[in-house]
Amino acid sequence: MANGMYEIISKKRDGLELSQEDIGFVISGYVRGDIPDYQVAAWLMAIYIRGLADRELADLTAIMLDSGDRIPLAAVEGKKIDKHSTGGVGDKISFVVAPLLAACGVRVPMLSGRGLGHTVGTLDKLEAIPGMNVFLTPDRFRQVLAETGMVICGQTDNIVPADKKLYALRDATATVSSIPLIASSIMSKKLALGSDGIVLDVKTGSGAFMKDEQDSIRLCRTMVAIGEKTGRPTLGIISSMDQPLGRAVGNSLEMIESIEALKGNGPEDIMQVTFALGWCMLRAAGQEMEYAKAVETFSAAIASGRALEVFRRFIAAQGGDARVCDDYSLLPACRHREELVAPQAGTVARIDSFEVGMAAIDTGAGRRRKEDAVAYGGGFVFHANVGDKVKKGQSLLTIHSDSGELLPAVRERLTAAIRIEAGPVAKPKMVLHLVDRNGITPWPY
Amino acid sequence: MANGMYEIISKKRDGLELSQEDIGFVISGYVRGDIPDYQVAAWLMAIYIRGLADRELADLTAIMLDSGDRIPLAAVEGKKIDKHSTGGVGDKISFVVAPLLAACGVRVPMLSGRGLGHTVGTLDKLEAIPGMNVFLTPDRFRQVLAETGMVICGQTDNIVPADKKLYALRDATATVSSIPLIASSIMSKKLALGSDGIVLDVKTGSGAFMKDEQDSIRLCRTMVAIGEKTGRPTLGIISSMDQPLGRAVGNSLEMIESIEALKGNGPEDIMQVTFALGWCMLRAAGQEMEYAKAVETFSAAIASGRALEVFRRFIAAQGGDARVCDDYSLLPACRHREELVAPQAGTVARIDSFEVGMAAIDTGAGRRRKEDAVAYGGGFVFHANVGDKVKKGQSLLTIHSDSGELLPAVRERLTAAIRIEAGPVAKPKMVLHLVDRNGITPWPY
Repeated sequence: MANGMYEIISKKRDGLELSQEDIGFVISGYVRGDIPDYQVAAWLMAIYIRGLADRELADLTAIMLDSGDRIPLAAVEGKKIDKHSTGGVGDKISFVVAPLLAACGVRVPMLSGRGLGHTVGTLDKLEAIPGMNVFLTPDRFRQVLAETGMVICGQTDNIVPADKKLYALRDATATVSSIPLIASSIMSKKLALGSDGIVLDVKTGSGAFMKDEQDSIRLCRTMVAIGEKTGRPTLGIISSMDQPLGRAVGNSLEMIESIEALKGNGPEDIMQVTFALGWCMLRAAGQEMEYAKAVETFSAAIASGRALEVFRRFIAAQGGDARVCDDYSLLPACRHREELVAPQAGTVARIDSFEVGMAAIDTGAGRRRKEDAVAYGGGFVFHANVGDKVKKGQSLLTIHSDSGELLPAVRERLTAAIRIEAGPVAKPKMVLHLVDRNGITPWPY
Repeated sequence: MANGMYEIISKKRDGLELSQEDIGFVISGYVRGDIPDYQVAAWLMAIYIRGLADRELADLTAIMLDSGDRIPLAAVEGKKIDKHSTGGVGDKISFVVAPLLAACGVRVPMLSGRGLGHTVGTLDKLEAIPGMNVFLTPDRFRQVLAETGMVICGQTDNIVPADKKLYALRDATATVSSIPLIASSIMSKKLALGSDGIVLDVKTGSGAFMKDEQDSIRLCRTMVAIGEKTGRPTLGIISSMDQPLGRAVGNSLEMIESIEALKGNGPEDIMQVTFALGWCMLRAAGQEMEYAKAVETFSAAIASGRALEVFRRFIAAQGGDARVCDDYSLLPACRHREELVAPQAGTVARIDSFEVGMAAIDTGAGRRRKEDAVAYGGGFVFHANVGDKVKKGQSLLTIHSDSGELLPAVRERLTAAIRIEAGPVAKPKMVLHLVDRNGITPWPY
């Protein structure tokens, strides 16, 4: 056994292609505990530096997928389209696009994770809603999806257990940011869910895990290729995470902003990304249409209240108190509120989303370690975005926090994160590229 | 701490240069047990693929050296020149060149290892001599050196403990054959011994650890640069290990061949390598002379019996029975002897030394695992070398073995290892290149 592993490490070390058997040997041996961490660590570093060919990547993804359970969805009628975001600061698009698409006849099943690092997790945001249950049995998962048109559930240990073990090792050995390793990690989990198509939102910029645009593009293309290879229509967008998405960062605060968006009051950037992803989801579901037509359809679903109604029913189906949609005071809130004011007049030129994310963690809105408790009410509401003019002394944002103690550090971080300039600043483009089976094109709308 | 290690792994992963502090952090943390195997494994693979700059390599070597004890030799009068071979099949040059140089006034201190893989170790060969003690205290080490002009001792755990731990991990993670890692491993141990100069015999070819000549040259140049950087004259040769060195392979058998060489009956290839290394050792000791003059000096030391007399005194000083020099029946011998005969007439065109080494292990002459016992009498004596004409049915070699059982496998391996061709075959060149502080030159003599 050890000999087999030695030879497999050597092959990848020397830049040779691994066979399906090689990859299966490593993954199954590691999951079983037969291959020690240090050998897999050397192998991961060799992959990080040497890369994986398309065939190797497809094999790795399939083998990881096979390491655990799947959630078949064939029993649920209609087209089921999964939407995945690589994560960012203020990213609450799932709560807007899922009910919107469900209102338009597409079923949206999603498996989500907790926040880690500088981002607040989708599951934590959902749990801000009193009573919300984010862990469902596969049967209940299908039921909620069939009854309400959407479902969001935490991923259990039985889904791609190989990824759980590999990720922990990658996290300790500086092999996380490898495009093939990220792609196989994400796509094996996407494929475990029996959707009919997959839409990916790959973030790029300061607050994204992939800060470099070319890396984000490569990751997106790689994942689209994996999805398409399995026969599922897969599309992706590259969207900006240079500044926080929307105006709210936190759990309750983002939930309120999401509900407002479903009521037709969404900030422009949120709606741009929502419509772009929604249009991709329609395409993945086989409903090809002009972009303008799709926006019209989405706008009607919001204006009629159908999208919000889906969200209400989804909350109720997962045990949550759907009255939060009408009474935000039912959501946890923080005691302290403070304003951060503009130190000078000008135009907001930059809001560093990574720093905003880290400051949000400081308010208690996110987790520093897995076992940390979350202050659901913590976070920020911005009153000015990039491109907005501000007067000196005008409030740039409100800080929500349970403890006033950390506020000086939070204020300092935020102050450094926001740059105000004299001249005019263009509103940033939110959606940058579209990736589909034909390749990449600049986002045309 | 873990964060520091993460960043150091990332730096090397991305091809950046590590600081002295970075390298010290890893080595000291690993030796202390603060940094886990899997992080060091990822780091070693990054080094394997990205390499080390000269400065990093010098720092790594110095830091490894500082992880353990040194054996100062300043108290021993005269120039002390250490000779090191990267190891090969039939390599008994130490037993010839050390007494020869000691007879010429150079003191030769050596720390040696056990055989592993396809080679028989220097310590095992010495232990074929009844009573021989290969583990000495530093005081006794200096004493033997001062009294006899030479000393060969096993390396203790206190010399470069970092190398011991790193080597075990490299061995499991396919990161052994990295030139900077090999160079720092060898040179940190050479530098632990307080010699005045170092001469390196880097083997190349089938039976060498470095099979590729260009790799052997790079390793030699790298080690010479490290030695010179510390201010010790360091020279190296690249010598052929395509066929076994000399005619004997084994423990007692090689000891007999070495003593014969000291009596003036050494095979040509042994004497070529001995004289080349000896000439380098004279240079390292500051005794620059024409090669022909050195050969004359060496020949006189052999002819006069002075070289053999040094060897006798060295054996006695380390507790061995020096009478073996005159009565080979005092050395362990094997019960079975069998001839392997030429299947056809022609010229010996190739004797694959790796295969011969593996076959010797099969006779019990070497160790498959560290804990294996050694059959000191096992091995082979060749009666024909590459370039020699043979008749059909003529004995090519005698197999010495305690157990007749393994002989069919040994015969098969040896038969496949020896190629006989019709046409004439040139005698192979033994010494290929000379490496010194000025660079590399083809061996001119």
